[in-house]
Amino acid sequence: MTIPTAAYSVRLRVRLDNVPGTLGRLAIAVGEVGGNIIALEGFEAKTTHLDEDLIVNCIDAAQMQAVHDALHGLDGCEVLEFEDRTFAFHEAGKIEVVSTMPLRDMHDLSMAYTPGVARVCEAIAAKPEMAYTHTIKKNSVAVVSDGTAVLGLGDIGPEAAMPVMEGKAQLFKTFGGVDAYPICLDVPTGDVDAIVEAVQRIAPGFGGINLEDIAAPHCFEVEARLRESLDIPVFHDDQHGTAVVVLAALENALKLVGKSMASLRVAILGVGASGTAIAKIMLAAGVGDIVGVDRGGIIHPGREGLNEAKQWFVEHTNRNRLTGTITDALRGADVFVGVSGPGLVSVDDIAGMATDPIVFALANPTPEVLPSEVGHLAAVMATGRSDYPNQINNVLAFPGIFRGALDAHAHSITEGMKIAAARAIASCVPEEALKASEVIPSALDTQVALAVGRAVAAAAVADGVARVR
Amino acid sequence: MTIPTAAYSVRLRVRLDNVPGTLGRLAIAVGEVGGNIIALEGFEAKTTHLDEDLIVNCIDAAQMQAVHDALHGLDGCEVLEFEDRTFAFHEAGKIEVVSTMPLRDMHDLSMAYTPGVARVCEAIAAKPEMAYTHTIKKNSVAVVSDGTAVLGLGDIGPEAAMPVMEGKAQLFKTFGGVDAYPICLDVPTGDVDAIVEAVQRIAPGFGGINLEDIAAPHCFEVEARLRESLDIPVFHDDQHGTAVVVLAALENALKLVGKSMASLRVAILGVGASGTAIAKIMLAAGVGDIVGVDRGGIIHPGREGLNEAKQWFVEHTNRNRLTGTITDALRGADVFVGVSGPGLVSVDDIAGMATDPIVFALANPTPEVLPSEVGHLAAVMATGRSDYPNQINNVLAFPGIFRGALDAHAHSITEGMKIAAARAIASCVPEEALKASEVIPSALDTQVALAVGRAVAAAAVADGVARVR
Repeated sequence: MTIPTAAYSVRLRVRLDNVPGTLGRLAIAVGEVGGNIIALEGFEAKTTHLDEDLIVNCIDAAQMQAVHDALHGLDGCEVLEFEDRTFAFHEAGKIEVVSTMPLRDMHDLSMAYTPGVARVCEAIAAKPEMAYTHTIKKNSVAVVSDGTAVLGLGDIGPEAAMPVMEGKAQLFKTFGGVDAYPICLDVPTGDVDAIVEAVQRIAPGFGGINLEDIAAPHCFEVEARLRESLDIPVFHDDQHGTAVVVLAALENALKLVGKSMASLRVAILGVGASGTAIAKIMLAAGVGDIVGVDRGGIIHPGREGLNEAKQWFVEHTNRNRLTGTITDALRGADVFVGVSGPGLVSVDDIAGMATDPIVFALANPTPEVLPSEVGHLAAVMATGRSDYPNQINNVLAFPGIFRGALDAHAHSITEGMKIAAARAIASCVPEEALKASEVIPSALDTQVALAVGRAVAAAAVADGVARVR
Repeated sequence: MTIPTAAYSVRLRVRLDNVPGTLGRLAIAVGEVGGNIIALEGFEAKTTHLDEDLIVNCIDAAQMQAVHDALHGLDGCEVLEFEDRTFAFHEAGKIEVVSTMPLRDMHDLSMAYTPGVARVCEAIAAKPEMAYTHTIKKNSVAVVSDGTAVLGLGDIGPEAAMPVMEGKAQLFKTFGGVDAYPICLDVPTGDVDAIVEAVQRIAPGFGGINLEDIAAPHCFEVEARLRESLDIPVFHDDQHGTAVVVLAALENALKLVGKSMASLRVAILGVGASGTAIAKIMLAAGVGDIVGVDRGGIIHPGREGLNEAKQWFVEHTNRNRLTGTITDALRGADVFVGVSGPGLVSVDDIAGMATDPIVFALANPTPEVLPSEVGHLAAVMATGRSDYPNQINNVLAFPGIFRGALDAHAHSITEGMKIAAARAIASCVPEEALKASEVIPSALDTQVALAVGRAVAAAAVADGVARVR
């Protein structure tokens, strides 16, 4: 099922006996343990031996070790170096802070720094909005996490969250031209006050706040209080980023199956941060009915002990007051959205959906149900993975959304801006290219963030939250 | 006295009648209002006129306006553009955050971000010290200010402080290769708890904290509490940066006048953040006696209402229990250090010092006493300005100090590391070049930070605060 990827990739430097057949035996040994040789380079012939660099993709850490062991024991082969390429990629961190101009002489210094800088400071003190034209506030976003819900890893703490936040900063710059800086907070787990206060205090230098990997339910309160108290955009990407991309995929999927938003019944499995945001943006986009399901089954008015987010589900979804399990929720449903865990949905569940079912099984790395199991049943299927068609990847949304919000110098990010972002993403798949295996553009498509940025800036003006137009 | 500088520099684009003598009249007009033409470029000849770019340095904003007015009214000259070059330099901010590697394809993405990044996160969660090898913590410093004592401008707030902190980040990278990011805090003025708490919360992602432009006396408590609670270096540059460079200048000045540290009596005017730090590093370096003077005169045991910092002066300085004014403090003193305000010391005060007096008049932009007034009396004179010899500029210290502290992965910055930094700075003036007008290297000397970094890292090991060696 799983194929070797660069995520589990090793670089080996080996010394081979310079006799015919050695390289062949090496290739066989790697293949026998399942590794995929993707590059052979650095070839250096000595008299009696060859030094060679070898890159091998694997499916997991155990297989990486198996590759090492296979070559370590191979006759005529000595392993000189063995490097986990992902760890090498992360060494010393993945971003840097550079000056936008050279400081060559005292003239440059006296403009960038003292004494010249004093006049710029005084001008900003007198006219605060100049911070948006004459400091990095114009183009900078803090990527803030408390490290409580990092990827699928849970509460691993702020230092361990840094590699993700640095990666996010790379994506912000690469796709959106946004200068993002990771801020990982050392606060007690779930301490909403501490997170809110810290972000409020550091806000002056930033043009926006991208909240990231903060666990539900405290992420909801953190976001709500920051949106309320700050005059710059605040966006919890785990909620809204996923929601925007799901809506984009749904827009295009509906074109293929010929259904309307209003006619849909959607079952969402998982009502945490992103499940809640998906439900909200879908209702805002005109979806007819939604049924939310969590570990306790369908959320309905009779359920007890529901938190605030789930109470919202009771009040806004499940028009027909369904009860039961995900199987009941899926019976006759048009759309399945899974933001839960691996294997929680069966082939029979999907078979019980309405005609032309749309299946978004987004649990990572292992979906709720696999394309190999239900691909033939679904009219359109999407996952969170890059090795299947239709990857729902937040990078399609957040760089462009902040690009647009910063360009419009927006106070906040409205539901209208998010829907505009979703439509812009959907529009990046040209009508002639639209097919079941391509309802969403590639995560590497650099045109997407540009299109999203333009659409979001225009929506900010339309929604009255832009300070420039 | 004051000469035109790039700090007050304008770029004009003018359209001149294409007849002989027009450019000459333009040059005369600029000269008559005191402007200094430093470049003529972008020359473009049309049939009846010439378009020309002109850069003019001035001494202040009023003169910049005078240049504009002189050319605006000049016969045969039309002003097409008028740009304050310092403000143009600051447009959209002065730093950016970039990825250290390209993200070209899904292989790169899967190593930098999901799914590969998860393994790096897990490794750090299991072994926290890996944050120092596999995240930007290895090389990053937060430049933190509450905006209460920005340059000579006072409490102008966090947004208005940003241009200075961005400039600092530029200098950190340009000279020390350190990735510095400005964090300007929105906290009530003087709220020590709020500053300390904010810095503690954002600390996980940073390898060091450079405190900046925080007013005395609350800066002392902020620094002390952060040094106590964080296991990364914390350094208030306004205190220690200046102190290190002053000590470097003093080291070299003593070589010229043939006096020893132990024999010195030093008068310090201004006992705020930097005055206090200068006194402390001087005592640690073996200076014999120091007399501190503030607005109320010499600090002595009989003074009342002294804050904690000034009480320290009572307990550690003024061996002979002097009382009176700065005039009394300077009578027979070997060294004057001014970190106060313009014109507070007279020519007679300097004349009353011991033989070969050393005068460091560091008030900015206007010194306590001018080189033109007392240069003939002083054996060595230094100021904070780039247009006089011997500029005491913190940029000689902080990039190298953090370079060394980060390289040694130090817990903190010790007095020994600061003294090592001062000696390394002093050593960058070769013995054959050492003279009264050159006791300190140029702020643009890129060798200084390297030398300081090596010395500081070695001192960190010697002082037992290094985690690598």
